[in-house]
Amino acid sequence: MATVRLLSDEEAAVNPAVQAVFDDIRATRKSDFINNFWRALAHDPAALKRTWESLKAIMVAEGPLDPLTRELIYIAVSTANGCSYCVHSHTAAARAKGMTDDQHAHLVAIIGMAAQTNALVTALQVPVDEAFLVAG
Amino acid sequence: MATVRLLSDEEAAVNPAVQAVFDDIRATRKSDFINNFWRALAHDPAALKRTWESLKAIMVAEGPLDPLTRELIYIAVSTANGCSYCVHSHTAAARAKGMTDDQHAHLVAIIGMAAQTNALVTALQVPVDEAFLVAG
Amino acid sequence: MATVRLLSDEEAAVNPAVQAVFDDIRATRKSDFINNFWRALAHDPAALKRTWESLKAIMVAEGPLDPLTRELIYIAVSTANGCSYCVHSHTAAARAKGMTDDQHAHLVAIIGMAAQTNALVTALQVPVDEAFLVAG
Amino acid sequence: MATVRLLSDEEAAVNPAVQAVFDDIRATRKSDFINNFWRALAHDPAALKRTWESLKAIMVAEGPLDPLTRELIYIAVSTANGCSYCVHSHTAAARAKGMTDDQHAHLVAIIGMAAQTNALVTALQVPVDEAFLVAG
Amino acid sequence: MATVRLLSDEEAAVNPAVQAVFDDIRATRKSDFINNFWRALAHDPAALKRTWESLKAIMVAEGPLDPLTRELIYIAVSTANGCSYCVHSHTAAARAKGMTDDQHAHLVAIIGMAAQTNALVTALQVPVDEAFLVAG
Amino acid sequence: MATVRLLSDEEAAVNPAVQAVFDDIRATRKSDFINNFWRALAHDPAALKRTWESLKAIMVAEGPLDPLTRELIYIAVSTANGCSYCVHSHTAAARAKGMTDDQHAHLVAIIGMAAQTNALVTALQVPVDEAFLVAG
Repeated sequence: MATVRLLSDEEAAVNPAVQAVFDDIRATRKSDFINNFWRALAHDPAALKRTWESLKAIMVAEGPLDPLTRELIYIAVSTANGCSYCVHSHTAAARAKGMTDDQHAHLVAIIGMAAQTNALVTALQVPVDEAFLVAG
Repeated sequence: MATVRLLSDEEAAVNPAVQAVFDDIRATRKSDFINNFWRALAHDPAALKRTWESLKAIMVAEGPLDPLTRELIYIAVSTANGCSYCVHSHTAAARAKGMTDDQHAHLVAIIGMAAQTNALVTALQVPVDEAFLVAG
Repeated sequence: MATVRLLSDEEAAVNPAVQAVFDDIRATRKSDFINNFWRALAHDPAALKRTWESLKAIMVAEGPLDPLTRELIYIAVSTANGCSYCVHSHTAAARAKGMTDDQHAHLVAIIGMAAQTNALVTALQVPVDEAFLVAG
Repeated sequence: MATVRLLSDEEAAVNPAVQAVFDDIRATRKSDFINNFWRALAHDPAALKRTWESLKAIMVAEGPLDPLTRELIYIAVSTANGCSYCVHSHTAAARAKGMTDDQHAHLVAIIGMAAQTNALVTALQVPVDEAFLVAG
Repeated sequence: MATVRLLSDEEAAVNPAVQAVFDDIRATRKSDFINNFWRALAHDPAALKRTWESLKAIMVAEGPLDPLTRELIYIAVSTANGCSYCVHSHTAAARAKGMTDDQHAHLVAIIGMAAQTNALVTALQVPVDEAFLVAG
Repeated sequence: MATVRLLSDEEAAVNPAVQAVFDDIRATRKSDFINNFWRALAHDPAALKRTWESLKAIMVAEGPLDPLTRELIYIAVSTANGCSYCVHSHTAAARAKGMTDDQHAHLVAIIGMAAQTNALVTALQVPVDEAFLVAG
């Protein structure tokens, strides 16, 4: 159960700023479905608008990484941060964007491998090699 | 400074099990360079072999995700886990595999966006939507 | 479900050390309610006493930060650490100490913003500016 | 050392979008100092603008939490996320906004206490009390 | 609910590589019980085999740390990483290997203490003492 | 560099409450060495005393887990929390209490294995088996 109530469509309609974001989510995603994250965030219309617009710019707009790759990265971060909701929602999003079962299994294996070597490096306090310090 | 000494090539050569892994790293990567992570892990030859073989299976062998995408996911996990060494080494690896500056910037933006929504979701304790619970 | 049983009032009453802490929690909070955290911790009366006394010194006693600010900080840490129980219990505590919905929304926005810039900084491995290194 | 070069003022001046953000940071903070975070982020002018504008809306604009409290929350999140740069920069910012040594010590004690009880709760897997589940 | 289906014994039997690992888990543990983790991982038979063999080498085979100590360390890491499933499964495993209630309480206290001092150190950004930098 | 100055012995001597803790640390550890953590924490004499007394109760006093096992758990938590200082100081402490190189390597392997399976479980969102839900 959330620490705030989830706004229904009726409640969202009361505030034009919220309604505008909900409309844009629906138009952008070509779906009537508004997931719980936005319904919880909608208590703060400015945060709702800011977050949705940032997400749209990073995850939806044209960009150098393709939509599926973006979702894989999102799942990776969400897993490392232990966000159950985010793992569920972005795994569903990745599947909707064409992620196959084999790709999902590969993603999961990479996440596990990275978590392991991250821990080994931290336990051993390995110093960064000079060769890696040449910035872009 | 590491919590263990980093093995030099001379020290690695003393143990055939270590030497064999170092040889395979060099042959696989077509480079003489062995980074500090392996030199720190080499005190435990079984762990060295196990970790390298898993990494090779997941990051080098044929698979459904391409080599650059794998590195982007690795950077994402390493960032979320706060592993400075790993961020440096895998950012270098991604660049060596063709990551452009624009792709790097996009990756960083996704990592930041995911971290933010992960935190918002956790603060708001958003319950998982039914729609996301249909497993593969 | 907890990894230990939650002690009932009857079980707590069997051990005077546990009973004394439960009594002090009730007296301090002016409420009969003992939340599950203390009932789980009560299997280790020394830990129960130590934790409660530290919490009382830091969160209840007079101090330079006011009670509501303390709860906001507690929520922030609990969110970043992904502790669902703690987010729920301290959000309830903050509301009981007067946190408004607007303050809660502001808190959540700050937590999200900090999580994002934390991730950006780690991905970019930004070195600390000299100007920030002048200690207190 | 960063994974990207830090942009100098001269390089920032080449791109009007970057220059505009740097100008606004200087005007808003009434200081000529631009810290390394922005110089690293400036390679992605859209991210630079988006991040600065969100930060300004959340940390600088009028709002229900006062500026010092916001910084305390930022330090708390940054500590829990293990971001050394962010702990340094926001501790400096909090001092600039009037944080006393006693307030800093209190903040640190709360962060430590929260981290401890977060861990105890997770180890004991304490279930959320019904009483905490009444959302706002 | 998992992001993949949990394989039943019937489904596992279809793939000899999966069946072989399930057989080895049962033989090694001298129990017919296969917990959900392996049933979720079994969609990737290579990952299943690799993970089980690594786990067996580290947690079951002869080694310098005794089986119960290994489980205590596993619980500690799982708690710090916020993995509810892992805390539950390894607490059960530790009990099966003889962990007493007093040892569990001591473990939990150490985990909490470490989490607290970790946070204090990070908030204070304490530099490593020279005396600690003499590697093994 | 710390966010507070590290107290010298001369500065510690000015405050009897700080001096008393420093004296007890030296007497308990039978060593004149006071590491930086305590010198940073000493700005808050109450926190210094509370933290030292808790640490002494949990890490030094008689208890069901032996001193070396306690340090191994401390290293495990500190690694998962990414506390470089704590990994260094407790690895040194474990060595001083007799940890062999083989035990250290085993510890590191367990930490890495746990981090990996924690991540796999979170990515797959594995539900807790009924069999693990029988509390102590």
